[in-house]
Amino acid sequence: MALFCPDRTNPALYTTKDHRIYAKESPELHVDPDDCVVHVRANGIFVPSPKHDHQMQMGLMSLPFSSSDLHFWKHGSIGECVVEDDYVLGHEGAGTIVSVGSNVSGLSKGDRVAIEPGVPCGTCALCEDGRYNLCRDVRFSGAPPFHGSIRRYHVHAAKFLHKLPANLTFTDGALLEPLSVVLHAFNRSPSRIGDPVLICGAGPIGLIALAVARATCAYPIVITDVDEKRLEFAKSFVPQCEVFHISTSTAVEAVAEEIKRVFTDKLGTQQPQIVYECTGVQSSINTAAYSAARGGQVMVVGVGRPILDGFPFMHCSMSEIDIKFINRYHHTWPSAIRLLSAGYIDLKPLVTKTFKLEEAVSALESAAGRVDATVKIHIVDDPL
Amino acid sequence: MALFCPDRTNPALYTTKDHRIYAKESPELHVDPDDCVVHVRANGIFVPSPKHDHQMQMGLMSLPFSSSDLHFWKHGSIGECVVEDDYVLGHEGAGTIVSVGSNVSGLSKGDRVAIEPGVPCGTCALCEDGRYNLCRDVRFSGAPPFHGSIRRYHVHAAKFLHKLPANLTFTDGALLEPLSVVLHAFNRSPSRIGDPVLICGAGPIGLIALAVARATCAYPIVITDVDEKRLEFAKSFVPQCEVFHISTSTAVEAVAEEIKRVFTDKLGTQQPQIVYECTGVQSSINTAAYSAARGGQVMVVGVGRPILDGFPFMHCSMSEIDIKFINRYHHTWPSAIRLLSAGYIDLKPLVTKTFKLEEAVSALESAAGRVDATVKIHIVDDPL
Amino acid sequence: MALFCPDRTNPALYTTKDHRIYAKESPELHVDPDDCVVHVRANGIFVPSPKHDHQMQMGLMSLPFSSSDLHFWKHGSIGECVVEDDYVLGHEGAGTIVSVGSNVSGLSKGDRVAIEPGVPCGTCALCEDGRYNLCRDVRFSGAPPFHGSIRRYHVHAAKFLHKLPANLTFTDGALLEPLSVVLHAFNRSPSRIGDPVLICGAGPIGLIALAVARATCAYPIVITDVDEKRLEFAKSFVPQCEVFHISTSTAVEAVAEEIKRVFTDKLGTQQPQIVYECTGVQSSINTAAYSAARGGQVMVVGVGRPILDGFPFMHCSMSEIDIKFINRYHHTWPSAIRLLSAGYIDLKPLVTKTFKLEEAVSALESAAGRVDATVKIHIVDDPL
Amino acid sequence: MALFCPDRTNPALYTTKDHRIYAKESPELHVDPDDCVVHVRANGIFVPSPKHDHQMQMGLMSLPFSSSDLHFWKHGSIGECVVEDDYVLGHEGAGTIVSVGSNVSGLSKGDRVAIEPGVPCGTCALCEDGRYNLCRDVRFSGAPPFHGSIRRYHVHAAKFLHKLPANLTFTDGALLEPLSVVLHAFNRSPSRIGDPVLICGAGPIGLIALAVARATCAYPIVITDVDEKRLEFAKSFVPQCEVFHISTSTAVEAVAEEIKRVFTDKLGTQQPQIVYECTGVQSSINTAAYSAARGGQVMVVGVGRPILDGFPFMHCSMSEIDIKFINRYHHTWPSAIRLLSAGYIDLKPLVTKTFKLEEAVSALESAAGRVDATVKIHIVDDPL
Repeated sequence: MALFCPDRTNPALYTTKDHRIYAKESPELHVDPDDCVVHVRANGIFVPSPKHDHQMQMGLMSLPFSSSDLHFWKHGSIGECVVEDDYVLGHEGAGTIVSVGSNVSGLSKGDRVAIEPGVPCGTCALCEDGRYNLCRDVRFSGAPPFHGSIRRYHVHAAKFLHKLPANLTFTDGALLEPLSVVLHAFNRSPSRIGDPVLICGAGPIGLIALAVARATCAYPIVITDVDEKRLEFAKSFVPQCEVFHISTSTAVEAVAEEIKRVFTDKLGTQQPQIVYECTGVQSSINTAAYSAARGGQVMVVGVGRPILDGFPFMHCSMSEIDIKFINRYHHTWPSAIRLLSAGYIDLKPLVTKTFKLEEAVSALESAAGRVDATVKIHIVDDPL
Repeated sequence: MALFCPDRTNPALYTTKDHRIYAKESPELHVDPDDCVVHVRANGIFVPSPKHDHQMQMGLMSLPFSSSDLHFWKHGSIGECVVEDDYVLGHEGAGTIVSVGSNVSGLSKGDRVAIEPGVPCGTCALCEDGRYNLCRDVRFSGAPPFHGSIRRYHVHAAKFLHKLPANLTFTDGALLEPLSVVLHAFNRSPSRIGDPVLICGAGPIGLIALAVARATCAYPIVITDVDEKRLEFAKSFVPQCEVFHISTSTAVEAVAEEIKRVFTDKLGTQQPQIVYECTGVQSSINTAAYSAARGGQVMVVGVGRPILDGFPFMHCSMSEIDIKFINRYHHTWPSAIRLLSAGYIDLKPLVTKTFKLEEAVSALESAAGRVDATVKIHIVDDPL
Repeated sequence: MALFCPDRTNPALYTTKDHRIYAKESPELHVDPDDCVVHVRANGIFVPSPKHDHQMQMGLMSLPFSSSDLHFWKHGSIGECVVEDDYVLGHEGAGTIVSVGSNVSGLSKGDRVAIEPGVPCGTCALCEDGRYNLCRDVRFSGAPPFHGSIRRYHVHAAKFLHKLPANLTFTDGALLEPLSVVLHAFNRSPSRIGDPVLICGAGPIGLIALAVARATCAYPIVITDVDEKRLEFAKSFVPQCEVFHISTSTAVEAVAEEIKRVFTDKLGTQQPQIVYECTGVQSSINTAAYSAARGGQVMVVGVGRPILDGFPFMHCSMSEIDIKFINRYHHTWPSAIRLLSAGYIDLKPLVTKTFKLEEAVSALESAAGRVDATVKIHIVDDPL
Repeated sequence: MALFCPDRTNPALYTTKDHRIYAKESPELHVDPDDCVVHVRANGIFVPSPKHDHQMQMGLMSLPFSSSDLHFWKHGSIGECVVEDDYVLGHEGAGTIVSVGSNVSGLSKGDRVAIEPGVPCGTCALCEDGRYNLCRDVRFSGAPPFHGSIRRYHVHAAKFLHKLPANLTFTDGALLEPLSVVLHAFNRSPSRIGDPVLICGAGPIGLIALAVARATCAYPIVITDVDEKRLEFAKSFVPQCEVFHISTSTAVEAVAEEIKRVFTDKLGTQQPQIVYECTGVQSSINTAAYSAARGGQVMVVGVGRPILDGFPFMHCSMSEIDIKFINRYHHTWPSAIRLLSAGYIDLKPLVTKTFKLEEAVSALESAAGRVDATVKIHIVDDPL
């Protein structure tokens, strides 16, 4: 275990148990023989939609895991992860290797890498079965108590650093984390070529699900949101999609009936076999369950509130609608990199605002305050 | 469309919109060229457990579909099926063919058959895809407005009459319907050979699930109920099972924690990948979701209340627990017949009480009043 | 059963038991109440590669089913389908409805439709299970003794006519048949998003598999052929692909070893989990089996010779390589139409030569004689 | 790495490159900190059928992997495993722990354990994906150059020693290896409850497949062999099965046609969706491919000759018959132990002859010379 002594300062963005954020020098980096130190050049932050803000104030907050930076700051916990001591935020990072542990092979100083934040134990039954995302002993950078990557230098297990091809930028690299969330959802619930799908929610995860649905030939693709600006963004991002604005004053079953008619009457197809639920909001999940075709399924991509009420149980029984869930991802970085490198998917349009590392506090505040049409904010160091 | 004129009377058991039952001559039978008339020799009735009674009084009633006879009587509807006019109950029947429609081939007068009650349209997309249980235009004998089989003579589509081998009794034949419910659940969610499973609920469906889990080599098998008498029955029915009594005063998560310890500490195995939920009761479903292994699933075999509250959403996300549902069955009668005929499964011990057709009203009242340890009641005509 | 009396002649392309082709007036069309008559505006013909010709002469002919027009002409049979009486060729057709049977709803005179050639019985167990492609009593237009669509007017079951959206041409419509073959293969063996795949053969089916692999985000995609001109075409058709020229003088295992190194050394990825075998040629199938990743699979898209020798059995055991097969397609037209209509896939570049209906004999002869870089020939009537 | 110094001699059964076997003191045992030393109390040996002998003489030998002891002795190699130096045979062992490495937890001296012979690398992509059976760097006890368990004391990685419950004997423990082969086949290709299956071959693996098919409620089950004595054994072992004697003078397609009629005409059911091929013999594999139902599959449980000729390629295409393979097993010991411990399956009747460790050479010679109705031979030390 060596101490990493950088030439430059290592400014980091902390959050606290009492819901504050501040910038300060990072804790010292202890480098295990299997670790590398990365000079983090880009970090992504999730920007929730305005409606989420309203829900947050009402204590109904529910966000996909990718929004965890804001969530840990504002709420102090997600599931069993609770902020106790001040810790460094950030779990969507990419950068350049500046130091290589003594056991590491295959990576060198100067290599450009994306950081897969979760480092599983590697020895439990779930790890040995390939489902390392379900490991109970995962050390997830950016989830307390493990320091995240919104700092200049970050130490990480070499095995979970993935080399970036020359044609990918650090911005691309930092987008691999939310793309991985969506890929895992599609791996567990792939839509068939040319089949209709519904995506609930046009936030960052919903928009990436939209890109992946388009890229894998789902058609038609209907995407919903309560925020019309988000839907405008969705339409410009993937012109083949059909947008559907949800009025929050309409009852869940009536909304589902309207969505059904968009598929059957307007688009002339069947109801979707798969609904990708990307909001974590209770009304949206219940709408999703009513919207799927008989014998279909709802893939719940986001994490939401602990307990769900109002779930249409009898409807799901009568229609054989399965409800599937995901927790993060496993083995997704290599294919995510290939998708971006091949030019099949371009997520850079989602990064609508950029801050310097020194402005990290402002970046988070901007994300929390959210301006319409901001989708993702990136924090960069030594911008190109 | 010929009129069937029987030699004997055709007494039938009716229910009404205002929750009464009575016996009276059946409506006339009009026999389509594709139909047969069956002299029904045995009909099964589901007997809910005492706790269900309590819930029924509290308006929290929730029952697997197999209990639909009582449910239509006492509540007047299940999902979109609503009792309007008086109609004949019964959907678990077997008997002897007494008349054969002009188009029918492969069946003859005197053939002993089991009645598959649901007759789908045969032409919709779901029927053509083999999932005829999801057909929206199914005509289900015993669900309003379609008369059921608790009468002496019953007319039915020949295609949905299944010949009984010589070594099966009419009692066996009438048990094929609830067995089909369970087989469909196991077809959609098969447990792996030698893997642990949990069965929630030791009512008729739970007990049949227990028999099928045993027959397909799940091990260990833990079965739960709030009623200790039911658990005693379960243990005598399948001695290899482990019974677990649920205290209704214990919180859902705590119950799940106790169940988990039965698997890990007492039985020395892992948590179950599959939980077969056979109660439809809210607390049981939520317990099931907490009890499955990470990456596992809950197969909800029964139908329950329309809306489910208190569902552990965050837990299912974090643990990737899928929730799957079934509606009845498709293509199960042939394999169900083979299972009984091969002697692999014997469900006759579940029939703990028998009434004559003339006593059908008493049979239903007995089922509703339920005496401890009564599992299934059969109504027979011309008993052997 | 009405007789269709057209205003114009109905020239048709026949083949014979003794391997001749000729043009002559079509047999009279008898229109069942469930049928429509289509004025066929475009018909596709498969063009085998030069090497196939060589094999054909050597009696080693093996072709994907889509080449059946040439195959029935030159060989007189495929499997159990044998040319006895002269019959009309053609199974890749699209056109305009000119007459509608009395039972038909949903289709009108003037509707532009694609013809799904196989009309299954609709009542056997396989049809009722949704796998109508496996129906033993399918009546397949263009396979003896059922007349095909290379004629002006063709009668067909309305249920297997699929409306074309306004933005699809008749050329698109006629391409839906070979696209359906490939979609069925991908439905049975979908490649995962961003995963490497190998496509063996750059004939028409291989090229469509290439388009579908690209469209569904396989990466990298390596395509092989013995004909360099075909590979050039492939590269211009899907620039993201990697082409690999197979030398017929190299042993199967050595070729597979070279292919493996293209993936691992040149492209820096793993061996493909899925190999789409699109030649039906023995050496190619055996190469495919050696080329798949451990635990992977070979999807055999084409039909080949009756008996296969030299299959690497021990290798498949040791590596757990599954070999999967398809026969035609089921339920693919609607999604195939959506893929073309959405602009996700454009197969028109594959049609490299067009003949008028009056020149149908020349069209077939041209296909059989094949000029390099000809991929598909279309026969059109009343060209736009 | 400590040296294990036993109190008693350590007699071992060796084979040589030039196809001899002999007994001699085992090589010294070097005990890694993660290893245990087991006093091996029972070892199983596979006994091929008389017909196999004939094939062996003709150089057509093909055997399931479980017969590898005889195979390495008589042929010197299986796939890439080649006998170079003399080494100790045996890969179906169980015994008592006599020494525990310094890193080992969870196992103690005196524990009764079964030996899972293959020890994978644990770090390759396949190991990390849970498919450790496909690891290229597996160290398999009993396959050259890794010494096997037919000796008194055997050193093995603790992670691959599985504790035996009190109600299992060492004989049971040694039977877990061939049971694992079959369980892996059924895990990859599970038969549905109550569905018909065909098992080709009534050798040890076929008989265990028969037991598992019975235990998991396949019905009817038809088992074939060329040896009537083996079929008699099968019938007495699982009375519910139907035996079918294959005449080696009948052509493959004609045999398949007869088998089909056993299912359809004699047993009144459909052709099997799954055929478990347990011989590895070319004619049997090809028969299996002809015997499966349309849309079905052949699961090839055994390993056979390197190259397969005469494979009915066109038939498999036209009928969509998938051919699946297995290589050994992964994660099967725990469930195999539960199956035996629960009393669901009893394989002890398969052990038809027992030799003492001192008679190991005679045991192997007896297996090679095979007496009719001998299925498995066990070699025991300090018999109870």
